[in-house]
Amino acid sequence: MEKKASNITVQALQRMPYYLHCLEQARDNGIKTISATSIANELKLNDVLVRKDIAAVSSTQGKPKAGFPVDELILDIIDYMGYNDKKDAIIVGAGSLGRALLGNHEFEGYGLSLVAAFDIKPELIGKEISGIPVYHISELEAFCSEHRVPIGIITTPPDVAQGIADTFCRVGIMAIWNFALTRLDVPEGVLVQNENLASSLAMLSHHITK
Amino acid sequence: MEKKASNITVQALQRMPYYLHCLEQARDNGIKTISATSIANELKLNDVLVRKDIAAVSSTQGKPKAGFPVDELILDIIDYMGYNDKKDAIIVGAGSLGRALLGNHEFEGYGLSLVAAFDIKPELIGKEISGIPVYHISELEAFCSEHRVPIGIITTPPDVAQGIADTFCRVGIMAIWNFALTRLDVPEGVLVQNENLASSLAMLSHHITK
Repeated sequence: MEKKASNITVQALQRMPYYLHCLEQARDNGIKTISATSIANELKLNDVLVRKDIAAVSSTQGKPKAGFPVDELILDIIDYMGYNDKKDAIIVGAGSLGRALLGNHEFEGYGLSLVAAFDIKPELIGKEISGIPVYHISELEAFCSEHRVPIGIITTPPDVAQGIADTFCRVGIMAIWNFALTRLDVPEGVLVQNENLASSLAMLSHHITK
Repeated sequence: MEKKASNITVQALQRMPYYLHCLEQARDNGIKTISATSIANELKLNDVLVRKDIAAVSSTQGKPKAGFPVDELILDIIDYMGYNDKKDAIIVGAGSLGRALLGNHEFEGYGLSLVAAFDIKPELIGKEISGIPVYHISELEAFCSEHRVPIGIITTPPDVAQGIADTFCRVGIMAIWNFALTRLDVPEGVLVQNENLASSLAMLSHHITK
């Protein structure tokens, strides 16, 4: 069960939470082994793809007919994805979306630990949202330097997002989850994951108006 | 300024909100014309791509040197994307994510009008969240049939999502925005837009642990 090398596609990586959830459901139903075909059917995926994805993150061998041992596969995915290894994250912008993220305790199951929020609204500063302290944005740089936070989340209006990303990069944040409707310019080595609800909405609207 | 045909790529469609925001910012700064190159620089895109995207949604001709008339291009994008044509949507699951979506009034700018929420928790039924009424899930089918809602949003736990999608399809919902960590099986013609925060988190975690 040694850790596999990092030669995995983005798509495979994005499927891992689905596999994990499917396997955990099987385990909770008392199922001990599961075939790639069952997983594929459950998730509406191709079973060759499922076998390939599993092989990329686990050296667990599926037995003919019986399939993969569920518990072992769960542990391999958790291990590969680093879900047991908590990574601190901060969030800038404590508006409605920021609050929803702060209140989402599911993230902890995925290895994300929200440690602080930052905003500019005087009425929020010094308060806690879902148990997480809110600081003034002017304290962002000092906080990040002191705590060596690896992940930064941006849920601000788009016009201030680049400035925040610049600060993030200056203090050593390596991965940015960007919910603001703007493209961020970051140095090589820093990952920006854009999460754009307006772009998703564009897809939905277009589908029903076309 | 007649409406262009629907031969646009998913990626182009997803860039439209970015273009719109960029153009609105320019307009608010008193800028009357803008070149594709300026838009491309602002959004960190290739300018050939920007020209192609604009041509797909607008017959406005950019003038050499001066560029595109900002106001006209804004109207063309709004028109193409149907942002002026409000589309009703309902949301099932009034947990923290559901509440954030209900409280996000920006969606109205993108043509989405949230008209009702559904949940099973007795303490929520009959209340309003951000001015939107919450009904019991048992009323979902009757409500949708009566109001002919085209868009359904799922922010429930994954194990009940398929059942809700089935109900959506039965009552004629054409586009589903799925935030639940499960793949939905829907008839042809129904669009499912999966929004998976856990998959995005997988990307971020993998980047900093690799």
